[in-house]
Amino acid sequence: MSFQLTNHLGRETAHHVFDRAIPAELIVAPGTEVSLAIRDGSNGQITPKTTPQDLHGLNFGLMDPLTGPIFVEGAEPGDALSVEILDIQLGDWGWSGILPDFGLLADRYPGPFLKIWDTTADEIEIGNGHRFDLQPMIGVIGVAPEQPGPHAATVPTVAGGNIDVKYTQKGSRVLLPVFAEGGLLSLGDAHALQGDGELNGTAIECEADILIKVDLVKGAGLIAPVIDTPPSSRVEERYRSFLGVGPDLWEAARSASSQAAVALAAALKMPEDEAYTLLGIFAELRIHEIVDQPNWVVGCMVPLRIFG
Amino acid sequence: MSFQLTNHLGRETAHHVFDRAIPAELIVAPGTEVSLAIRDGSNGQITPKTTPQDLHGLNFGLMDPLTGPIFVEGAEPGDALSVEILDIQLGDWGWSGILPDFGLLADRYPGPFLKIWDTTADEIEIGNGHRFDLQPMIGVIGVAPEQPGPHAATVPTVAGGNIDVKYTQKGSRVLLPVFAEGGLLSLGDAHALQGDGELNGTAIECEADILIKVDLVKGAGLIAPVIDTPPSSRVEERYRSFLGVGPDLWEAARSASSQAAVALAAALKMPEDEAYTLLGIFAELRIHEIVDQPNWVVGCMVPLRIFG
Repeated sequence: MSFQLTNHLGRETAHHVFDRAIPAELIVAPGTEVSLAIRDGSNGQITPKTTPQDLHGLNFGLMDPLTGPIFVEGAEPGDALSVEILDIQLGDWGWSGILPDFGLLADRYPGPFLKIWDTTADEIEIGNGHRFDLQPMIGVIGVAPEQPGPHAATVPTVAGGNIDVKYTQKGSRVLLPVFAEGGLLSLGDAHALQGDGELNGTAIECEADILIKVDLVKGAGLIAPVIDTPPSSRVEERYRSFLGVGPDLWEAARSASSQAAVALAAALKMPEDEAYTLLGIFAELRIHEIVDQPNWVVGCMVPLRIFG
Repeated sequence: MSFQLTNHLGRETAHHVFDRAIPAELIVAPGTEVSLAIRDGSNGQITPKTTPQDLHGLNFGLMDPLTGPIFVEGAEPGDALSVEILDIQLGDWGWSGILPDFGLLADRYPGPFLKIWDTTADEIEIGNGHRFDLQPMIGVIGVAPEQPGPHAATVPTVAGGNIDVKYTQKGSRVLLPVFAEGGLLSLGDAHALQGDGELNGTAIECEADILIKVDLVKGAGLIAPVIDTPPSSRVEERYRSFLGVGPDLWEAARSASSQAAVALAAALKMPEDEAYTLLGIFAELRIHEIVDQPNWVVGCMVPLRIFG
């Protein structure tokens, strides 16, 4: 299925940078609902027939294509755009994997690795009968940044972009600071499921049709995006948290994630690079402690039920 | 109430460092249940009569006193101690605040600030009628580290210690790598409620009586603690996530937390330093994204219901 409102943007509006010089594809009044069709994060470079070796030929400059921009009437610097995510309909397949030399543990798991998922059901099976509900979300949502010129779609900034916040699901609201007249909102990079951190660099990457409501908050004075998470009827999972401990959060995150990858591979009897890819989908990367000088604690949390 | 098993350690066993040279106070076989009485994180330096100005006189060397050590028969380097948290009974009051020049935003909120809480009920009220269930947990749990000599109780290491993992609640299990004969387990620093990050440096700090079951996992080969979170019947809260975006996780965490403190203070019409103290109790600090080069995204997540 797909959405097709009067205010609609199709996949043909794809662009590759945030830039205040890119003309708006759509001009809307505050309070308008808009339907968008967005390409997958690889921009069609990966299909169900792609082999892992093909990933060496990926053009990174084409990744995370954006649908937009949307000009919101009356939006000026200092205001905020409010984007409610009303619905997300995924394409019927998705991919995840290890892109060559990309991700938190690129030195340890250089890739390539590729896994294709069927996303037509409400859940996936990762192996050994372990099932996870899909939680469709939007990885890239942003506006034209303050500095003129092109800004890569793949890089998050205080203007949003590839923020990959797993909570940007149906029922959530994203507030984005406005830096250019009209805001110039673009979206892309839908995920069927992603954990906090997206630590290997991919979630379950899908095409999607999405429905949003765009509104304006005058004089919001934000310095970065603010996200209201969606209502949830889910009870919290139990997790096994692997700890990284040390004075550098980055190294602590790497240590925690390495331990989690090794343990997950052992539990599921699969190669470590495949387990590492699963971590991007459902492991939660959390800062457990950031004040007990001189060491901080990062946890890489894996659903406990996998360990039996 | 308090626990008093045959294998019991009282508050009088308090020591201030992890050190393989400290003689065991208790020797137990694997599988033994132990009751412990633990002092509060200030080691009695803070009472309900303490004023904020008194915090300038705190002796940091006395903080986070430990109850223990417990020698587990048969535990050798390469093994792991398994510590199940069977129960935690809090004292009837707790404190939180800003210790002078301590915490993630010490430059912005230097303190001192002090708040005393009644912890005799199952919940607290933070202002404006907003209530939070208490979730008692253990902040310090660790064994003698690999290096001989004293290791401050206040510093987390791969041998545990002041890891301040909010999930160390009743029903959780902590695995600790063993570095010295017998492991030499000590615990301290109970919290009535703490968010991921404990970002201002305090939770709701309490005395407690706790009940644990100590077991041994031979040849576990851990390189850091691993924690199984407790069963939860709680439905996930909705949150407002304030984003910090940039190439340094520490600075991103600071930015996110600053924004959250300002917004929370406005919502509750309270001073920013008081709101900052509340963040340590219930804000969740999460790494939303750690791969979208060159910028990472940290979220400081505050329960949405506070914002009305």
